[in-house]
Amino acid sequence: MYTLHIANKNYSSWSLRPWILLRQLDIAFHEEMHPFQADIQAQRKNYLAFSPSAKVPVLQDGQTIVWDSLAIAEYLAEAHAGVWPEDRAARAWARSASSEMHAGFPHLRERCTMNCAVRATPKTVTAELQQDIERVNTLFNQGLARFGGPFLGGAAFTAVDAMYAPVVFRIQTYDLPMQGAAAEYVSRMLALPGMQQWYAQALQERDTDDAHEQDVVRYSDIIGDERQQ
Amino acid sequence: MYTLHIANKNYSSWSLRPWILLRQLDIAFHEEMHPFQADIQAQRKNYLAFSPSAKVPVLQDGQTIVWDSLAIAEYLAEAHAGVWPEDRAARAWARSASSEMHAGFPHLRERCTMNCAVRATPKTVTAELQQDIERVNTLFNQGLARFGGPFLGGAAFTAVDAMYAPVVFRIQTYDLPMQGAAAEYVSRMLALPGMQQWYAQALQERDTDDAHEQDVVRYSDIIGDERQQ
Repeated sequence: MYTLHIANKNYSSWSLRPWILLRQLDIAFHEEMHPFQADIQAQRKNYLAFSPSAKVPVLQDGQTIVWDSLAIAEYLAEAHAGVWPEDRAARAWARSASSEMHAGFPHLRERCTMNCAVRATPKTVTAELQQDIERVNTLFNQGLARFGGPFLGGAAFTAVDAMYAPVVFRIQTYDLPMQGAAAEYVSRMLALPGMQQWYAQALQERDTDDAHEQDVVRYSDIIGDERQQ
Repeated sequence: MYTLHIANKNYSSWSLRPWILLRQLDIAFHEEMHPFQADIQAQRKNYLAFSPSAKVPVLQDGQTIVWDSLAIAEYLAEAHAGVWPEDRAARAWARSASSEMHAGFPHLRERCTMNCAVRATPKTVTAELQQDIERVNTLFNQGLARFGGPFLGGAAFTAVDAMYAPVVFRIQTYDLPMQGAAAEYVSRMLALPGMQQWYAQALQERDTDDAHEQDVVRYSDIIGDERQQ
């Protein structure tokens, strides 16, 4: 069975991607949680025991170690049907949109860091953040219109939905404006069994990480917290 | 035939990746050059005419538009042999290393920006930059030792070599220290016909971009420039 190494569900956007992909595709896996540590050098040392890059997520398949969320998706696609859309044009679009997320959206990432539990309002929506939000709207609406929905690449949940799953939680946390079909897509994603499970487990986590909590406060005003204090 | 949209060969590390992959795999393509512009909004508007993300590179295959370097590699892998290593373990490693480059190495990218023509010395090698350089050394030596070389994923040039091709030019520009087999690999890469061609064309470009030139000066002292003034 696969082992998936991840970090805190409340914060680790990169961990969510392969986790939700495996979960929604009903691929069996064992999960190993490695909470973030305040001492970055200590964390690095601990992570190097299972991760060549000292980062999460890592998929372990017997002797094979696959590090990085997008490489995990491609590795799984070789062994399981349904990781990418069946239609070739939809697959090209899905891979492009996934790669764009993988290396892009720096302002959304920095100013609207993933924190599933919190409800917050950005102090300032900079022009660059606004552009990132508009690009998410465009991508969501384009994929849904072009391939017929209800998911980004068509009828089924695929890796491109998994790659944008952290953005969906960010939209909920910061109440980012989504237009038309994109707004319905976000609600649909949040209602998925896998997303509900991840969210419930994020709320139950007791390993809070100050650095991640401060990332929210730096750019936003907190207006709520769904965790039981 | 494919059309590949790229920007200045002297600066555009992301453009180099699919270009060198197509070139080394002898896949025919037509190239369209879109030089960077000082006016970012004007550039954005021009780029949007061919690129959904307003970025380069973009591969056009009839009606299909593939944006982003890694998505282009996966798109090509569906139609052409040899894009990724044949051996499954080597392929998993190659994809992981490629994804790590695609979303990582922020300090190497910021402080040792690609500028093929220039020779420079970093003003300060920060601990973070040092860590990025060490990671490149580790990855190069690991791939070469594990899969037998002379390329990172084994006997043939594949997409993982293409993904690290811009790093090879950075190593040359900033004379970054490489150990053992990694140093030989860098020399071997620089001697490839495709890399030589890209480099020669980079030196001939007359479209200099101030922002990219300033990126070098910010963190490094220039000690040479191979362009004919």
